[in-house]
Amino acid sequence: MRKILILTTGGTIASRPAGKGLEPEAGATMVRAAVDALKPACEVDIQPIAQLDGSDVQPEEWQAFARAVIEACPDYDGIVITHGTDTLAYTAAMLSYMLRACPIPVVFTGAQAPLSRPLSDGSENLRCALAMAQSQKPGVFVAFDRKVILGTRAVKVRTTGFDAFKSVNYPYVGEVNARGLVLNAHLPKRPSQLFSPELRLCKRVFLIKLIPGFNPDVVDLLASLGYKGVVIEAFGAGGMHVIRRDLTDSLERLTRQGIPAVVCSQCLYEHSDLNLYKPGQLALEKGAIPGYDMTTEAAVTKLMWALGQEADLEAVRKIFATNFAGEATLPQAGESR
Amino acid sequence: MRKILILTTGGTIASRPAGKGLEPEAGATMVRAAVDALKPACEVDIQPIAQLDGSDVQPEEWQAFARAVIEACPDYDGIVITHGTDTLAYTAAMLSYMLRACPIPVVFTGAQAPLSRPLSDGSENLRCALAMAQSQKPGVFVAFDRKVILGTRAVKVRTTGFDAFKSVNYPYVGEVNARGLVLNAHLPKRPSQLFSPELRLCKRVFLIKLIPGFNPDVVDLLASLGYKGVVIEAFGAGGMHVIRRDLTDSLERLTRQGIPAVVCSQCLYEHSDLNLYKPGQLALEKGAIPGYDMTTEAAVTKLMWALGQEADLEAVRKIFATNFAGEATLPQAGESR
Repeated sequence: MRKILILTTGGTIASRPAGKGLEPEAGATMVRAAVDALKPACEVDIQPIAQLDGSDVQPEEWQAFARAVIEACPDYDGIVITHGTDTLAYTAAMLSYMLRACPIPVVFTGAQAPLSRPLSDGSENLRCALAMAQSQKPGVFVAFDRKVILGTRAVKVRTTGFDAFKSVNYPYVGEVNARGLVLNAHLPKRPSQLFSPELRLCKRVFLIKLIPGFNPDVVDLLASLGYKGVVIEAFGAGGMHVIRRDLTDSLERLTRQGIPAVVCSQCLYEHSDLNLYKPGQLALEKGAIPGYDMTTEAAVTKLMWALGQEADLEAVRKIFATNFAGEATLPQAGESR
Repeated sequence: MRKILILTTGGTIASRPAGKGLEPEAGATMVRAAVDALKPACEVDIQPIAQLDGSDVQPEEWQAFARAVIEACPDYDGIVITHGTDTLAYTAAMLSYMLRACPIPVVFTGAQAPLSRPLSDGSENLRCALAMAQSQKPGVFVAFDRKVILGTRAVKVRTTGFDAFKSVNYPYVGEVNARGLVLNAHLPKRPSQLFSPELRLCKRVFLIKLIPGFNPDVVDLLASLGYKGVVIEAFGAGGMHVIRRDLTDSLERLTRQGIPAVVCSQCLYEHSDLNLYKPGQLALEKGAIPGYDMTTEAAVTKLMWALGQEADLEAVRKIFATNFAGEATLPQAGESR
């Protein structure tokens, strides 16, 4: 019989009404009861490691959660982490980098409605996550609404609907149907490498989502505030102002100061491609790092993680030209992106 | 025979390959040829008013485009504006506020591939826009991929696919099928009021999309940089850090300085609701203005427009508690949001 560990961190799934809206329970009474009711065909241990609203999960928690996984890894066939949905996609992406080549499935799940509600999605999500945790497929995943998403490809797109997460620019890893949890057989195999967790990260990364009229004045201040990296959610395939409020000049100044600026798209779906239009080409010439088809969640966490390993801009650029955990579809030789 | 005016502003639809990627044509030769080939059952005048990559459209252009519409209004039954797709949703939202109660249809369209390409979507999009412009339904709209979206509800979600725009938290206004352009009969009627355009706006609005670990240091600098308003793309239904890097304290300082802070969601779909969880309730107590189910595009432009009319925070708060152009679903009496 397989042994699964559930690490609980709080979140809506284990929340109860309190003075100021829903608040996560201390301990793991609700999750334990829900798991027992599912009568899973595996042994399930439960260990509370945090009691947080998802919107309070921060880089310090990413490191603590990763340490809990590393510690438990030798004793379990799979690990489930219950987590607030608000930041779940960011945590799953960061742990995908930190725990690269983790030998067992690490499966994030949560709920849009607390387990205590009669129509909660929590129990169904736990069931899907437990199935994925028993799959022997190594990696970091998100299980939600009967689907399994690669840890670097999940985005929360709904505030209340149960189909809260989408797999962006990547097929679902698995889906529950009448046959059970059916894994996608056509996904590339992960390269085999030694499991050597790397938990260092840099917290001083700033995300800028462009709006028309965006004035680069704030970008020009970031270095003096101690920021070490910038992610730009550009327009469309990678557009930004080049007249009147030229952002590419600011990117050039960042690059000269050794601060990487990664450009991805504010469109939810499909590739950014800085080569397509003049503004993107200018940004590239001035040192911008292309974000390809990465989600913002995957790009921001990758930059924090990359800067934790390497302080040098060119080393960070190299990390962004590498697909570490399925986060990016890199251009093939001869392609323009 | 109806008279339609097409205002061209550049964008991919009228772009040609140039030295650095695609660049918009001078004049309107490509759009004229495409319209003539459609043999429309209306008279079509074409007037080039800009020659811009969508990612260079800024508040100054919004005002210029709105002036061109106001000037042409008395002489036409409808107006089409061809526009780069990258910022089209922002421009459509802003013109929805500026041109409230405009008596004719003002229809934005564009293309993902230039008209010069054999498989361009430009011609089909022009056809849909021309049909909507002849509909006699007043308002500002986006016509794309055989669908018509309310000007305040469009979001660009794809960088290359032809179904680039979604109608977010609002039904499509119309769809093309075998019967032609079929308008949604169940949408609420616009209140009848006098057409009194209001083009003033404030350019000093900053958008912040939260990431885990977001440090409020930059927010605390915005007032000294001369920013007059802030929009926060919060986590989920309106979450933000309240421990270690408490953003609600910064919102309180902004409010005390008379700077409005509007909170909406970084989830593409569904309502934000600051009452649901503790962090959102704290934000509300400290003065945050709820963004309800507004898109970021509609919230940012509404704040710029509101600050153009009113410098006072409480007056801006009142504008945000009003649905001006279909941009927000306000809570009913007794509802928590």
